[in-house]
Amino acid sequence: VHSLQMSKESTKPNLIYMLMDDMGWGDLGVFGEPSMETPNIDQMSREGMLFTDFYSANPLCSPSRAALLTGRLPIRNGFYTSTYHGHNGYTPQDIVGGIADSEVLLPELLKEAGYSTKLVGKWHLGHREQYLPLKHGFDEWVGAPNCHFGPYDDKTTPNIPVYNGSKMIGRYYEEFPINHTTHLSNLTQLYIEEALKYIKEQSTSGKPFFLYWAPDSTHGPVYASQMFKGTSRRGAYGDAVKELDYGVGEIVKLLKNLGLDKNTFVFFSSDNGAAMINDAQTDGSNGPLLCGKETTFEGGIREPTIAWGPTFVKPGQISHQVGSLMDWFTTALDLAGIAQPQNVTIDGLSLKNVLLGGTEFDRPIYHYRGNTLFAVRYGFHKAHLWTWTNPWVEYNKGLTFCRGQYLENITTHDQMNYTANPVVFHLGRDTREHYPMKSGHEYDEAVHQINKLIEEHESNLKPGLPQFDWCDDAVMNWAPNGCQELQKCLPIPKSNKQKCVWLH
Amino acid sequence: VHSLQMSKESTKPNLIYMLMDDMGWGDLGVFGEPSMETPNIDQMSREGMLFTDFYSANPLCSPSRAALLTGRLPIRNGFYTSTYHGHNGYTPQDIVGGIADSEVLLPELLKEAGYSTKLVGKWHLGHREQYLPLKHGFDEWVGAPNCHFGPYDDKTTPNIPVYNGSKMIGRYYEEFPINHTTHLSNLTQLYIEEALKYIKEQSTSGKPFFLYWAPDSTHGPVYASQMFKGTSRRGAYGDAVKELDYGVGEIVKLLKNLGLDKNTFVFFSSDNGAAMINDAQTDGSNGPLLCGKETTFEGGIREPTIAWGPTFVKPGQISHQVGSLMDWFTTALDLAGIAQPQNVTIDGLSLKNVLLGGTEFDRPIYHYRGNTLFAVRYGFHKAHLWTWTNPWVEYNKGLTFCRGQYLENITTHDQMNYTANPVVFHLGRDTREHYPMKSGHEYDEAVHQINKLIEEHESNLKPGLPQFDWCDDAVMNWAPNGCQELQKCLPIPKSNKQKCVWLH
Ligand SMILES: [Ca+2]
Ligand SMILES: [Ca+2]
Repeated sequence: VHSLQMSKESTKPNLIYMLMDDMGWGDLGVFGEPSMETPNIDQMSREGMLFTDFYSANPLCSPSRAALLTGRLPIRNGFYTSTYHGHNGYTPQDIVGGIADSEVLLPELLKEAGYSTKLVGKWHLGHREQYLPLKHGFDEWVGAPNCHFGPYDDKTTPNIPVYNGSKMIGRYYEEFPINHTTHLSNLTQLYIEEALKYIKEQSTSGKPFFLYWAPDSTHGPVYASQMFKGTSRRGAYGDAVKELDYGVGEIVKLLKNLGLDKNTFVFFSSDNGAAMINDAQTDGSNGPLLCGKETTFEGGIREPTIAWGPTFVKPGQISHQVGSLMDWFTTALDLAGIAQPQNVTIDGLSLKNVLLGGTEFDRPIYHYRGNTLFAVRYGFHKAHLWTWTNPWVEYNKGLTFCRGQYLENITTHDQMNYTANPVVFHLGRDTREHYPMKSGHEYDEAVHQINKLIEEHESNLKPGLPQFDWCDDAVMNWAPNGCQELQKCLPIPKSNKQKCVWLH
Repeated sequence: VHSLQMSKESTKPNLIYMLMDDMGWGDLGVFGEPSMETPNIDQMSREGMLFTDFYSANPLCSPSRAALLTGRLPIRNGFYTSTYHGHNGYTPQDIVGGIADSEVLLPELLKEAGYSTKLVGKWHLGHREQYLPLKHGFDEWVGAPNCHFGPYDDKTTPNIPVYNGSKMIGRYYEEFPINHTTHLSNLTQLYIEEALKYIKEQSTSGKPFFLYWAPDSTHGPVYASQMFKGTSRRGAYGDAVKELDYGVGEIVKLLKNLGLDKNTFVFFSSDNGAAMINDAQTDGSNGPLLCGKETTFEGGIREPTIAWGPTFVKPGQISHQVGSLMDWFTTALDLAGIAQPQNVTIDGLSLKNVLLGGTEFDRPIYHYRGNTLFAVRYGFHKAHLWTWTNPWVEYNKGLTFCRGQYLENITTHDQMNYTANPVVFHLGRDTREHYPMKSGHEYDEAVHQINKLIEEHESNLKPGLPQFDWCDDAVMNWAPNGCQELQKCLPIPKSNKQKCVWLH
């Protein structure tokens, strides 16, 4: 029945990606967050498939999101820096680069196949005009190109614009306020409304749709609307989670009410692990996992992941399939009966059979930090070729990516090269990465197998042109398209292109 | 309907306590253990009430179990040592003390009220004849008085006996083998069979029953039977958890099949947090919580707790009620319509109304380590008056109670006296105890309130006679009752009573 339904052109599934920002593996009730304040997401997982071993393609927003939409590792799609060894990079507003035209994005392929496409929320694949969502497959967009950092003075640094389509409609901290003290902002409500409106519109359009719902309220500075402020047991971060959970609930409810649930596939995850750096009000939770955002320990890369949609997902399942956000690229095309792009290496694999209750399979996951392969997971084993958290100079100033966690020779502040003798953890027995496997048969076998995989991987690797090498104040959001109508254009300073500085 | 049913003498509820040994808060699927291999326990929680904020009365077996059955803090019932400041003690087999006759145990009260009573598994309230279960309210017992450490040589140290009723039926590592290499033992199967047999017998007896089911396979050395060996993703510890989960499933299924579910109240928990000291094969999980067994950080004392029984528990609930194992004493008597003991301080509170869906209430929980009040939880706040993990001399040899976790001035190896300025955590925002609250209004209020509670608590405190001060090789299990018939009596050495040595 399933395959029949899916092979019919007329029933191409609607696709919804719900991508959280810096939400950690341990932030959901189903993953043991003690406050258990995500009833709607938890319920979605019980109606669908909950993935315990699902990974981001990178411990940072931009590369993770670029990988999600291209199905390719950041080292291929260019979302890395070649300036430093193993340093993370992303797309702050002085970044010169962005998503290359040569990259094939999921919304482009879906659009070609007859889909309507919309992004609601954070883009983060480059904010210069040629990099924006409407140039890369999206019909519609409401949201922002960068993180909601600020407020800025609009003199040395402009505030980040919020777009509707190809034009800005205001700026954060101006038309779209975010209060750092009260943690109040209406942005999540806007993003929920935009999602619901779009789904309603599309339900009568006769076309399948792709909604990429990317709210960012769990990324610092965290925020929630008045309706949720102070309602969580967990403080401001928990208020943000509760509002997102409410949004998920509203979206799923609408799908059911409109009868779209049978032909809609929903995928919920987060772009990277929770940051373990701030304070009790704003840190998320990676549950028992080691460290957080910025690192290639499990806390940086394992994501709370759910697939939902009765026609495409066997309900009520827990899957231990080792997966990657990049898999959704391949899976979405597979579900939609669209050919995978040719002449380009795709790292994602289709999980269609797993979703339908099929057998889980072994596959490697390559965890990069910047331009460097730091770790590889295969089966239960994870081999760390390099370990690093952040440099001493930062750590000595109080910055850590592993608050409260310390393992000698593992949560290191120097880049440690273990390539010759990788640090291996068995993630079944030791999800927390606390006990490096000792030498012996199991260790040797695991290392041998992983080294073979690495050799194959590296022999075929053609790194993309690095997009995070160059920065320039002149490319900041001074005068985005649409600023004229709003009288919000700011003077653009002289170009001052220089190598970006990435500290960790 | 509920209160009517319960007030009738003829419908006194059956009571089942399922008490795990060293199982951690994070070991259940519902609390986010990534392997999610506890489907029966998870299902029980969905049919009943899951408690997120439930505490042991002590981070170690014996005191915790004595508190469970007396409803009283170990400092009152004597399960502590006065020899050292803030050191843990328990009942190894050279301990002279045990549960005092003056203590009123739950099974004694239930027996008086017409209940049949049985203990299956570990006792740990003293192994000398006068301390054994049949002297303290249990009609029946199959299990052992001490931990399953060993094997011993039966010369300098006897192996621990296994009892049926008042007589030994063999010894660990002899008639009841436990293999440290293969992690094989049939003990859990024995304990499951004994539980099922007892429930079947009682179903036609016309008397209400109390079954205290206390398997110990998740306490080191961990073990499982052949049927479960190698079936877990988590190794030997996970195999043990799976077998216990199977046992829980069998018990609940039998209750339903026999139609006992409507008149049986089941309570599931663990005696203390998971040990964080061993290796990947044998450590349990405390999820995101700090440290483990032996400590008064959340990992040592917060327990995975479930209440089940359709007539007594509103189904499908998650409760954030701050609770204690000692509450089950009071709650059980309340559910059974039995008067609370008079002229004795009971620390447990009745949760009857909470179970029926009533309002959660604030109450303090006093966390002792040995003879010293280390921490107090009230509302969301937990104030640490003392911090300590283990002494430097142990730590420098590689022993830690907080594997992989380190917080300066908190996970200390010296006993730090913070009584004047407690280290306070907000356990809603900061379940992990990572961010001590800074001085300010909230801190002051919390400390003021907790100090008032401490003052009241200490003004009424009459410590019991300490039972863990004296040790003697002569009191070991050389010649337990029943050894004659089995020809397993060993010669008793000369008495050599000395102060017990407690290292931490
Ligand atoms: Ca992010
Ligand atoms: Ca124990």
